Amino acid sequence: MGASRVLDNILTLIATLQQQCGADETIRGVGIGTPGFVDTNGVMIGGAKNIPGWAGTDIASPIRERFGLDVTTANDVTVAALGEARFGAGKHADNMLCVALGTGIGGGIVVNQTVYKGSHGMAGEIGHIVVEENGQPCTCGMQGCVEQYASATGVITIARQHASRFANRSELARDIAAHPDTLTAKTVYDHVRTQDPLAVFVHEYACRMLGKCFGMLLNTLAVDTIVITGGLSASADLIIPGVSHYVPRWCWHDIWERCTIVPGALGDSAGALGAAMLVFEEIDPHETV
Amino acid sequence: MGASRVLDNILTLIATLQQQCGADETIRGVGIGTPGFVDTNGVMIGGAKNIPGWAGTDIASPIRERFGLDVTTANDVTVAALGEARFGAGKHADNMLCVALGTGIGGGIVVNQTVYKGSHGMAGEIGHIVVEENGQPCTCGMQGCVEQYASATGVITIARQHASRFANRSELARDIAAHPDTLTAKTVYDHVRTQDPLAVFVHEYACRMLGKCFGMLLNTLAVDTIVITGGLSASADLIIPGVSHYVPRWCWHDIWERCTIVPGALGDSAGALGAAMLVFEEIDPHETV
Repeated sequence: MGASRVLDNILTLIATLQQQCGADETIRGVGIGTPGFVDTNGVMIGGAKNIPGWAGTDIASPIRERFGLDVTTANDVTVAALGEARFGAGKHADNMLCVALGTGIGGGIVVNQTVYKGSHGMAGEIGHIVVEENGQPCTCGMQGCVEQYASATGVITIARQHASRFANRSELARDIAAHPDTLTAKTVYDHVRTQDPLAVFVHEYACRMLGKCFGMLLNTLAVDTIVITGGLSASADLIIPGVSHYVPRWCWHDIWERCTIVPGALGDSAGALGAAMLVFEEIDPHETV
Repeated sequence: MGASRVLDNILTLIATLQQQCGADETIRGVGIGTPGFVDTNGVMIGGAKNIPGWAGTDIASPIRERFGLDVTTANDVTVAALGEARFGAGKHADNMLCVALGTGIGGGIVVNQTVYKGSHGMAGEIGHIVVEENGQPCTCGMQGCVEQYASATGVITIARQHASRFANRSELARDIAAHPDTLTAKTVYDHVRTQDPLAVFVHEYACRMLGKCFGMLLNTLAVDTIVITGGLSASADLIIPGVSHYVPRWCWHDIWERCTIVPGALGDSAGALGAAMLVFEEIDPHETV
């Protein structure tokens, strides 16, 4: 779906919600989480390659003009982080990092109990932390980015690459040989639960790369809580102990022993709740459009 | 110098300053920057291995008890970051990272224009970001920490390790062979200026490792400014372009092109000024001890 369709859908949705909510004065503003980098004016700088034409799009102005409402924007994982921090798994955290393990890997940061967007809304681009020198080529143009190993896409790629080595001893490898195009990360994790050797290899590889990434992040941010969200968090019971095994190799001991990794508590609602909170926390009620 | 001597010196210094400043009511409080991790109560958690017995020391209570003054504490590079953010090279930054290149490597973070200490005062432990798997053993117990390559100690170690390879073609290598124990990082950088091949090798190695570290930090924090302080910042005119050459391999392009690396503007005063500012920013003037 192209940029203008996405923007049209947003405007239609706001109109519908406004109708449902009744009087305009009960609506404080509009909070939006979007993939990619969005600047403080609500204009996309880039990074959201899955929406053609989204870079350069001014999301905020059309909403302000049509509805006369204030608008605040942030990266989608940043608003999910805020949602989890206020209502979910990070409710008791002073400083937390939200890691979304989905098609790619994204990060959202809430420190000093405040959402941290970074200059130009670019903080938390943790999927592109390089964990393997001269590693897997990444869509971003670099090599060895952590999302090439530990996202759903990464897990699928690594499983396919190594399937032939495990051909004689892995049900997953046989599945891949028979239906190479239908492999999902869920299938890989289902096979981790039955100790399928290829699946275990892929899982350990992903956890090692993620552990390396988390170690660097913890040495930098020393958050007390890491919240795992995104599609792969359905396998958080496997991923959290797996990653925790590897983190200490890359992290100052005193920091690691004071950090907890937990699954998100809000599922897909985290983003919407966080975007809504962004309105209350960032839009001054005394300021007019 | 042991912990009790250090604490005695601090108390004596405060008494002297209090005498010089006159009436007590003009003193709002005491701000302290210290190596290592210091918690919100002013008690050392650890990390300052160069002061024997410092871990576990309660810095704040003796000051409160003896002088009746409020006390606030932070890591030494954290207060230097605040100093540079308020008065120095980060004065116009919204989000900045201060990197102290000295005997070790430390980091201080000022984001959303507020100092960020991390949970338990442990944020910015960037000297122990691992940049080389199975790399140089580090005092922290891990391997390949960036300070093993790009701190003064690291530069000296790498120069010594590789001197023999360059014996026939490097004045620096001949110096090291003649006086192996008196090598300083300054000598290495003096030789970089004359394009000595060993010195250039060591410098490029350090810059590559630092570039890797900065790339990860930028993908995480997306600061607009990185300020270089510490003893090695005397060679910032060599180090900044050197590091800048390597960062793009490890950093999302849109983030890197919006970040500037600059030398600190305040020298050794950054820490004292930052610690003083911490008093004004963290101690509520309406609260009594």
